Amino acid sequence: MDIKVGKAAIAEASEKLSNWGRWGKEDQIGTLNFVTPDHVARAAKLVKKGKVFGMGIPLDSNGPQSGLFGGRWNPIHTMLATGTDAIAGRQDEINRMRYADDAINMPVQAATHWDSLGHVFYIDKMYNGHDAKNVDSRGVHRLGIEHTRDRMVGRGVLLDVARFKGVDSLDDGYAISNDELDAVAKKQGVTIQEGDFVIIRTGHMERCIKNKAWGGYAGGDAPGVKFENCYWSHDKKIAAICSDTWGVEVRPNEGPEVAQPWHWVVIPAMGLTMGEIFYVKELAEDCAADKVYEFMFAGPPLVITGGTGSPINPLAIK
Amino acid sequence: MDIKVGKAAIAEASEKLSNWGRWGKEDQIGTLNFVTPDHVARAAKLVKKGKVFGMGIPLDSNGPQSGLFGGRWNPIHTMLATGTDAIAGRQDEINRMRYADDAINMPVQAATHWDSLGHVFYIDKMYNGHDAKNVDSRGVHRLGIEHTRDRMVGRGVLLDVARFKGVDSLDDGYAISNDELDAVAKKQGVTIQEGDFVIIRTGHMERCIKNKAWGGYAGGDAPGVKFENCYWSHDKKIAAICSDTWGVEVRPNEGPEVAQPWHWVVIPAMGLTMGEIFYVKELAEDCAADKVYEFMFAGPPLVITGGTGSPINPLAIK
Amino acid sequence: MDIKVGKAAIAEASEKLSNWGRWGKEDQIGTLNFVTPDHVARAAKLVKKGKVFGMGIPLDSNGPQSGLFGGRWNPIHTMLATGTDAIAGRQDEINRMRYADDAINMPVQAATHWDSLGHVFYIDKMYNGHDAKNVDSRGVHRLGIEHTRDRMVGRGVLLDVARFKGVDSLDDGYAISNDELDAVAKKQGVTIQEGDFVIIRTGHMERCIKNKAWGGYAGGDAPGVKFENCYWSHDKKIAAICSDTWGVEVRPNEGPEVAQPWHWVVIPAMGLTMGEIFYVKELAEDCAADKVYEFMFAGPPLVITGGTGSPINPLAIK
Amino acid sequence: MDIKVGKAAIAEASEKLSNWGRWGKEDQIGTLNFVTPDHVARAAKLVKKGKVFGMGIPLDSNGPQSGLFGGRWNPIHTMLATGTDAIAGRQDEINRMRYADDAINMPVQAATHWDSLGHVFYIDKMYNGHDAKNVDSRGVHRLGIEHTRDRMVGRGVLLDVARFKGVDSLDDGYAISNDELDAVAKKQGVTIQEGDFVIIRTGHMERCIKNKAWGGYAGGDAPGVKFENCYWSHDKKIAAICSDTWGVEVRPNEGPEVAQPWHWVVIPAMGLTMGEIFYVKELAEDCAADKVYEFMFAGPPLVITGGTGSPINPLAIK
Repeated sequence: MDIKVGKAAIAEASEKLSNWGRWGKEDQIGTLNFVTPDHVARAAKLVKKGKVFGMGIPLDSNGPQSGLFGGRWNPIHTMLATGTDAIAGRQDEINRMRYADDAINMPVQAATHWDSLGHVFYIDKMYNGHDAKNVDSRGVHRLGIEHTRDRMVGRGVLLDVARFKGVDSLDDGYAISNDELDAVAKKQGVTIQEGDFVIIRTGHMERCIKNKAWGGYAGGDAPGVKFENCYWSHDKKIAAICSDTWGVEVRPNEGPEVAQPWHWVVIPAMGLTMGEIFYVKELAEDCAADKVYEFMFAGPPLVITGGTGSPINPLAIK
Repeated sequence: MDIKVGKAAIAEASEKLSNWGRWGKEDQIGTLNFVTPDHVARAAKLVKKGKVFGMGIPLDSNGPQSGLFGGRWNPIHTMLATGTDAIAGRQDEINRMRYADDAINMPVQAATHWDSLGHVFYIDKMYNGHDAKNVDSRGVHRLGIEHTRDRMVGRGVLLDVARFKGVDSLDDGYAISNDELDAVAKKQGVTIQEGDFVIIRTGHMERCIKNKAWGGYAGGDAPGVKFENCYWSHDKKIAAICSDTWGVEVRPNEGPEVAQPWHWVVIPAMGLTMGEIFYVKELAEDCAADKVYEFMFAGPPLVITGGTGSPINPLAIK
Repeated sequence: MDIKVGKAAIAEASEKLSNWGRWGKEDQIGTLNFVTPDHVARAAKLVKKGKVFGMGIPLDSNGPQSGLFGGRWNPIHTMLATGTDAIAGRQDEINRMRYADDAINMPVQAATHWDSLGHVFYIDKMYNGHDAKNVDSRGVHRLGIEHTRDRMVGRGVLLDVARFKGVDSLDDGYAISNDELDAVAKKQGVTIQEGDFVIIRTGHMERCIKNKAWGGYAGGDAPGVKFENCYWSHDKKIAAICSDTWGVEVRPNEGPEVAQPWHWVVIPAMGLTMGEIFYVKELAEDCAADKVYEFMFAGPPLVITGGTGSPINPLAIK
Repeated sequence: MDIKVGKAAIAEASEKLSNWGRWGKEDQIGTLNFVTPDHVARAAKLVKKGKVFGMGIPLDSNGPQSGLFGGRWNPIHTMLATGTDAIAGRQDEINRMRYADDAINMPVQAATHWDSLGHVFYIDKMYNGHDAKNVDSRGVHRLGIEHTRDRMVGRGVLLDVARFKGVDSLDDGYAISNDELDAVAKKQGVTIQEGDFVIIRTGHMERCIKNKAWGGYAGGDAPGVKFENCYWSHDKKIAAICSDTWGVEVRPNEGPEVAQPWHWVVIPAMGLTMGEIFYVKELAEDCAADKVYEFMFAGPPLVITGGTGSPINPLAIK
């Protein structure tokens, strides 16, 4: 496709690709509706080896946030009870069981996560026509992540663009076209189907891990899909799109007019679920080895009432 | 079994049921080792209807904590960006995408969660002989939940004790014997197998939800398994034991000598994974309806580095 | 005064008592402008005995919040390093100094605190005509507490209404009139002057402490000033008004039409600084004993950038 | 003095300078005992101009922490209610008053702060002989900052070492001797007296602010007092020592054997209160202008139960 990316292109795509009302006025989960029980049952049949891949990155102070985006911080993990307390005899009176306990404090999108459909607005509206004012300081009162508690299961497909290109990692700014996604799928011998959870590997995260430096990973430049991907995702009727980058789409943005133009369309117009900061190294190596790029996917969100998303550790099961 | 519950019984069970060294000196996951890839592959075959049950409770300020245990608090959810900001034009300069963002702050065991093997000590030792001082204010440096990132998948079995007894909920203090668990399984037509994720339904949580009051749920009295369950769990070689209560075992404790005696044994001696505060109402109704009490279980923890556990939304897939 | 409290009365008072522009268009501190260096110097002369009273309540999980107001929680205090870690030898490699460290997480108005002028709006405006949209998810961008960093010093005066009435505590719902405040001052032999920090004692907090139960203290019913107090505070040109209750004004509210009507006027129209949840038991006893109800007041806020207020431990120095 | 700084010097100083038992076995505030009501009354007389200086730095995400020390983070400020919510009509039903609210989450020593006497241990003991195990995951159960709630008032003296040396800032690693402190006092025409709150200006913070980069300020190298200062502080019977650096003493440390050797002595042996990260630019300019280096000091801590310290905004009043 040849799209001049900017506000006009966003307006056009928003209209053409709108899923508002497609699953009813009260729908809160958008493209996850593409996944039927039958899809889930068939996805389970993809499990052959019984091999499980956890795609969540570690949640700790060494996380990817470096202050670039929206005041996010890395996970803060604090202890409420410790083994050192226990052996010092500090617990024997109050809690006769000797134990450790702890807490975690993090932006829900600071590490591997789902975006809920309440995460992005177009002008003053959310997906399905809900007013953006339904998201206030007390939470996401429409389209929160809690509505997806039992919907993040289905067929997963890895599209390993980096391996297709023969590189360890695509460069920041590398824009993945729809044609290229199709070529990758074809090369891998896999077909994208309705209701799929599509995971795109760019190698970006692995580059950061190898360099022992997240650098500008979260909030900065990255390889990713072109704006035109919104048409591809719509046509394929996928349930969700995920990647090993912080925001799926290419950065710097295509064109100076708007930041993250693809986001403007896929969440508020289409209701497309998005997964970000997925760790896929081991999964990708396994797929390259056995040539099987489809698998059962299970990525349950935490049931955060009114959440714009959830930290997750999604599983690929082959 | 007829056990006089107290320190002597704990010492005896700790010795008899010890799994220290069973899976090597470096093992960090205990009974999860019972789950092999073959178990995972067979578990996937249990998926017939494609029906998914999310067993995580909502994470919000209405959670079960009421100050009874260890300074835990209910999840605190705060917004970092809102739709009201967006429509007031507050984001247009800095973040040209209009969006919402948020954070969550919670004890990892405040709601539905896994315990890691670093959660409970016996005297000055953790599972597999690790020194309890490996758990300090900077985290759980041995046996943290991160080691289980890709291990929480397998066959799940629901043992619906409340339904077996013909009640909506067992009373607080009701102690479930090993014989009763066997009777429930027999009545349900299901056999507990090596590597199973066993989920016990007492109805306690449903009672709280019905009463719109968590009361002393977290940290207080509850129905649950007797101390002797450690022998049962060991004999059955189960991977994990879970329930709809805050601590699996019966409260008030059996005998005045120690608090939570079953915990003293199953985590540090056996390395048994424990899941607590599971929401099983819908799953249980479905099992009662189709008489199928086994299913694929997928409960990935967040990869909290050095965590004593993780908040989760575990899935049963039938 | 005889005021029918409601929206009309608020509108009238907002117009009559407005200080918008009084100290310039850029003013951010309102009535604190009444305090001049000369006032500070004279306040210091009130120090005779060298006796200091800390008026902050303890910040811990036993605080006054019980979920009644706006999702506030009691202070959460967590340790980052402990003595038990130290004696277990956990710090000797990394931090050769043996130490303890900790963190605090709290709503700024959860305990003893100042309100900043950015805390309350009238319709869509803040004090001095600033648009309410200047307060978004990233903070209070006008009228934040940081502007008062060096302004919370001057003459303090205690008006001990409870003692005047001969009771330990005024009842919830007891409404303090302007005449009564004047009578208290007269009885105490003290004159309210321009630039004063006026502290009203109702005994409410002491009642809660005595009962070992905060009950509905924060967010609930309370003794306090009548709506007409906005006229009194304006006429007296006081710098700030403080009390031992959570919100200074009487609750239940006078009239059903609006909640906390006095707040609607004193902050946005007048720019009056307000101090709440002040612990004054010992100060009041001392004043009753030596008959001196005036003192030096020093209540520095934390310099919370964009804060709606600050937790404090304000001092009365006699 | 000519001290070979290391463990032997620490042991010697700890013995010679010990204040254990000096103010009774139950004492929890150490050198703050030097401040009597008479000192407070005389300090108030130093107020001449009525000029107030707030010495707290802003609490926000641009704070001095950069991950160097102990897992500390910069203050996290989140909103619980906003003006954008208000004007979007989100509060009109629930809280009929339109308002903003917020919370702060920070290590107590992340910015301008007091150390409590529970902050540093010597071997396994705290000040006054308390066992270090009194500081566990639930807080500082002896010597917490709450004991100082009404004790942080007295005579303040600025020792402007940077101005004395004719530089904007002393270099990192510059070690201030006792003789130099005496020379500064003499040059300034001020005498250090029993019970003083001594504030040392190195210019370090101003250098960071000027460079718009905190760099390694918190936890890194810095100008500061030599180890021998423990003798000086003891001889002078000062109440507290404060500076515009993160840790008062010089860094890199004198000698390779121990980190922060001065801390090992002044807190656990002497019970000396310490103030860090004080902003003194404006105070120092005023003192240089009017040649008056003494003032009333009022630096109330928050009453953090069991705190290792408290964030503060201490005041100098001239």
